[in-house]
Amino acid sequence: MAPTVEGGDAALLPEFPRGPLDAYRARASFSWKELALFTEGEDMLRFKKTIFSALENDPLFARSPGADLSLDRYRELNFLRCKRIFEYDFLSVEDMFKSPLKVPALIQCLGMYDSSLAAKYLLHTLVFGSAVYSSGSERHLTYIQKIFSMEIFGCFALTELSHGSNTKAIRTTAHYDPATKEFIIHSPDFEAAKFWVGNMGKTATHAVVFAKLHVPGDQCHGLHPFIVQIRDPKTLLPMPGVMVGDMGKKLGQNGLDNGFAMFHKVRVPRQSLLNRMGDVTPEGTYVSPFKDVRQRFGVSLGGLSSGRVSILSLAVVNLKLAIAIALRFSATRRQFGPTQEEEIAVLEYPMQQCRLLPYLAAAYALDHFSKSLFLDLVELQRGRASGDCSARQAELGREIHALASAGKPLASWTAQQGIQECREACGGHGYLAMNRLGVLRDDNDPNCTYEGDNNVLLQQTSNYLLGLLAHRVQDGACFRSPLKSVDFLDAYPSILDQKFEVSSVADCLDSAVALAAYKWLVCYLLRETYQKLNQEKRSGSSDFEARNNCQVSHGRPLALAFLELTVVQRFHEHVHQPCVPPSLRAVLGRLSALYALWSLSRHAALLYRAERRRSCPGRRDRSS
Amino acid sequence: MAPTVEGGDAALLPEFPRGPLDAYRARASFSWKELALFTEGEDMLRFKKTIFSALENDPLFARSPGADLSLDRYRELNFLRCKRIFEYDFLSVEDMFKSPLKVPALIQCLGMYDSSLAAKYLLHTLVFGSAVYSSGSERHLTYIQKIFSMEIFGCFALTELSHGSNTKAIRTTAHYDPATKEFIIHSPDFEAAKFWVGNMGKTATHAVVFAKLHVPGDQCHGLHPFIVQIRDPKTLLPMPGVMVGDMGKKLGQNGLDNGFAMFHKVRVPRQSLLNRMGDVTPEGTYVSPFKDVRQRFGVSLGGLSSGRVSILSLAVVNLKLAIAIALRFSATRRQFGPTQEEEIAVLEYPMQQCRLLPYLAAAYALDHFSKSLFLDLVELQRGRASGDCSARQAELGREIHALASAGKPLASWTAQQGIQECREACGGHGYLAMNRLGVLRDDNDPNCTYEGDNNVLLQQTSNYLLGLLAHRVQDGACFRSPLKSVDFLDAYPSILDQKFEVSSVADCLDSAVALAAYKWLVCYLLRETYQKLNQEKRSGSSDFEARNNCQVSHGRPLALAFLELTVVQRFHEHVHQPCVPPSLRAVLGRLSALYALWSLSRHAALLYRAERRRSCPGRRDRSS
Repeated sequence: MAPTVEGGDAALLPEFPRGPLDAYRARASFSWKELALFTEGEDMLRFKKTIFSALENDPLFARSPGADLSLDRYRELNFLRCKRIFEYDFLSVEDMFKSPLKVPALIQCLGMYDSSLAAKYLLHTLVFGSAVYSSGSERHLTYIQKIFSMEIFGCFALTELSHGSNTKAIRTTAHYDPATKEFIIHSPDFEAAKFWVGNMGKTATHAVVFAKLHVPGDQCHGLHPFIVQIRDPKTLLPMPGVMVGDMGKKLGQNGLDNGFAMFHKVRVPRQSLLNRMGDVTPEGTYVSPFKDVRQRFGVSLGGLSSGRVSILSLAVVNLKLAIAIALRFSATRRQFGPTQEEEIAVLEYPMQQCRLLPYLAAAYALDHFSKSLFLDLVELQRGRASGDCSARQAELGREIHALASAGKPLASWTAQQGIQECREACGGHGYLAMNRLGVLRDDNDPNCTYEGDNNVLLQQTSNYLLGLLAHRVQDGACFRSPLKSVDFLDAYPSILDQKFEVSSVADCLDSAVALAAYKWLVCYLLRETYQKLNQEKRSGSSDFEARNNCQVSHGRPLALAFLELTVVQRFHEHVHQPCVPPSLRAVLGRLSALYALWSLSRHAALLYRAERRRSCPGRRDRSS
Repeated sequence: MAPTVEGGDAALLPEFPRGPLDAYRARASFSWKELALFTEGEDMLRFKKTIFSALENDPLFARSPGADLSLDRYRELNFLRCKRIFEYDFLSVEDMFKSPLKVPALIQCLGMYDSSLAAKYLLHTLVFGSAVYSSGSERHLTYIQKIFSMEIFGCFALTELSHGSNTKAIRTTAHYDPATKEFIIHSPDFEAAKFWVGNMGKTATHAVVFAKLHVPGDQCHGLHPFIVQIRDPKTLLPMPGVMVGDMGKKLGQNGLDNGFAMFHKVRVPRQSLLNRMGDVTPEGTYVSPFKDVRQRFGVSLGGLSSGRVSILSLAVVNLKLAIAIALRFSATRRQFGPTQEEEIAVLEYPMQQCRLLPYLAAAYALDHFSKSLFLDLVELQRGRASGDCSARQAELGREIHALASAGKPLASWTAQQGIQECREACGGHGYLAMNRLGVLRDDNDPNCTYEGDNNVLLQQTSNYLLGLLAHRVQDGACFRSPLKSVDFLDAYPSILDQKFEVSSVADCLDSAVALAAYKWLVCYLLRETYQKLNQEKRSGSSDFEARNNCQVSHGRPLALAFLELTVVQRFHEHVHQPCVPPSLRAVLGRLSALYALWSLSRHAALLYRAERRRSCPGRRDRSS
């Protein structure tokens, strides 16, 4: 039965214009409209259509693909477009609460148009705005209104020239002066300059600045966020004492003005401190609801998890765009053939299929993961907003942190590699700027390193799993987590005894087979990593050294395999729900199996090695 | 003993300026000057220094890294710089013959400065110029002089919009008209437009145009090269009947003007035919020293091998630049440490070492391979020039074709992946345009697809090896090739019986160990591919289908493993020569072992699987 959409689906999902892809489209074993409805839902399709139609009809968003825009002009255009998005007011606050997935959907639509626009909008609202909202108090609500009217324009200034990942080493200071009831924001030297801050280069009027808070007596209370005006909103000239500028050209996202700033004894009112986690009385006494400095720090950086989830979803957008471009090109480009006269579409070559189709499957699997993780995050944030201090809430925070810390690396790397494959698979045509694969690659690239370098982040996930295993070994605790992503580990001893017993290739085309292998693999890697870590410590390594020495060979593959398993698991469950339309089951099942088997195949050497060890338990590989 | 250089090495290899790298440099176990002398030789170091000094002192070559140049300005600058390189006349024709390695060295120096400049110079001289010289005859020598004085500026127009790899499907025509003694060059439709032609966009006045030659009676004699004037050298306006233009912005190499052209019945004199492989008499009779159309075609495209060798060497330049930038940054960037107070250089982390050091080793191994293959090519070209028609000369051509067809993919992909790793390993700083990693990546990118798409080219190499095995199986021929790269295969049955018997990790740190494993692997892959191909054919596949069905799983890894083996073999021999200074043996041996083991490790799954099959010969993996 064909799907129906209220009010007629012709307007919502019109037919494609006739063209060279018709022949392939006619051969499809399923209805693309039905798939779109199942994947997105009608409400979301309408929401996205509203956005795309608005942009399509607005001359400010017209562009020539591959145009040679100057940096300044591109940044100016991007700012004007960002402002226009606020004017369109696509998403009301009520809508956000009713359909939280519309928040990432809006960002994704902007990202489909231009990553720089998505980043600029996201940084102002969800990063700067959320920081003010979640770290501030009632006295800061006045800013929120100005954020949405774009009377002020914001940025989030944490990273410094010499310190990004190691936030504890950040050195901007904020000394409180009780005489004037002001904080003095200061950059002790150029290495402490705020650096890479998106929106800061040309356009931000205000910054959330992280600085070490000192009260009289020179006692330091660690990093705290302050809202600091850095430019005059009318002239955009820097405020006195603020040296602020643009970082210059980047590999991509050049519509976004990343900037630096140094503060020379800049005085801001006491109320500039975003005081949810700690405040200073007019007299200069530090007060905080949190007793522990580390806990305070954790709370103030809690927003970073949502940053990672946003990046994950933007990486998926880039992958989707690239794979659509490459597959469509491959279906129309003909080269060679069985005879000299007859040429076939390059998509018919097994090589081209092996290069591209796994990334199509990855786009579906990661898209679903990205949405489901966002909904988990919403649950976490609602708990926080309602003051939930339960153990479950804390566990949920840790689990989401672990999933986001490996999810961002997996999605950004998959997109990076996928776009590169797409670009090469389109040959010379893929190298032409107007075909967009270059822009997608360049704009996706920072997803691999910002908001936490991928390799550094993966340690968070492996540490999470190792911590759970230590807890189990030492205290007999169960593997249990609110989202159940680690629950299977409870049975790790029996899982490790399982053997692969599938007897035909056809049987492998069910993602349940790859899932079982993945579970075995994660159990195996977890045990090996734990043993290796303890062995390192026993041979005299410090904790720091031991972790560093285990990360390449053990921690990194553990974190990635765990996350891949989670993605496979969630997509497998999604496509095997009873509500899946029967006509879509086959194609969705194939996508799920393809992603699972392809991901798993990258661990093939490890699986063989593990099997070998099992068959000769006395014999260790010489390489270990 | 410290190396000495005539005239004092201080001028040739001055000390580095003092800076944050001093501490690491002081810890080096060898003299970098000695290594530079061994790697390059004094004469080459002087030659490169002459070039770099000239560029450094010439304001035309001054630039601001990361500057926001417009397309037009960049192309103009690149053209002026190219012209200036001719004025400097760094390399006389005598020098070229005496020290042929100076030819790629000059291109590499230009590539170190800017890939677009290297490409523009290379396309005019070594591609356009060589094509005129090697495909033309005495009557075309007048062009050669004008090429070196840049009175004319050239391009090489083979690829068309719809056909690149499949050159046989190219459709531009050249009909001979005996009445006027002219050829009529014509593009039948837009899909036959010449496309992607470097230098054609803005600056070329002449093109070597490949077109299907027809003589009266409409007999087609296949693709032939014609020299066609496309622009007026004074005004750069297109010649009548020529529609020529620029392709627009690309992902990189934007200093190079790639162009398209369509010819509307453009008449050129009979003498425009570059007639070495075939000519037309004034009356319109086709005459050729070659009887076979395929053989003629092969001769006319013989120059492509040299293009691939040039690309290989430019990819190595990009990798060298990137790895130097990333390692220097990693040695100065500090982040985290064993205590909160003490931070360590990121280069100290095993993760950073595992990410970067293999690419350092790859740069050395591939650099050596690139030079040695170039010298092989010189031998081939000298044979051709002296009219050598021996079987050895023909075999040498085939062997070099096979090595270049996999060498270009291996080097361009290694550079692509290496630069990406470098960019990510430098975190945010790596994303800033002025740090050059982005430009290197973007400029290296087309190396993966032009002059033959990497995946398509690899088939040439696997076909070469399969052909030799078929010859052996069917005719009992030996594996023998002029450069001896395939000779080891003669012992394939006994090599396949060998087992890995090395008993300690320390013993593996000799590249001879990896070499032995590589030989086994190539023998194994060759036999498996041959069997798989025959099995495909037996089950009814055509030759075309059978090859396509084997390429992903068999042909591709076979070609890559064979080429890696060749690179490892040549570098291993190079660093184990008796003339290697004793103080360099350790470091060179480590580089050789690191490259060999790292490359081999990417085949780990295959090695495990093969071992498993050997131990259970009755059992085939279910996946095959």
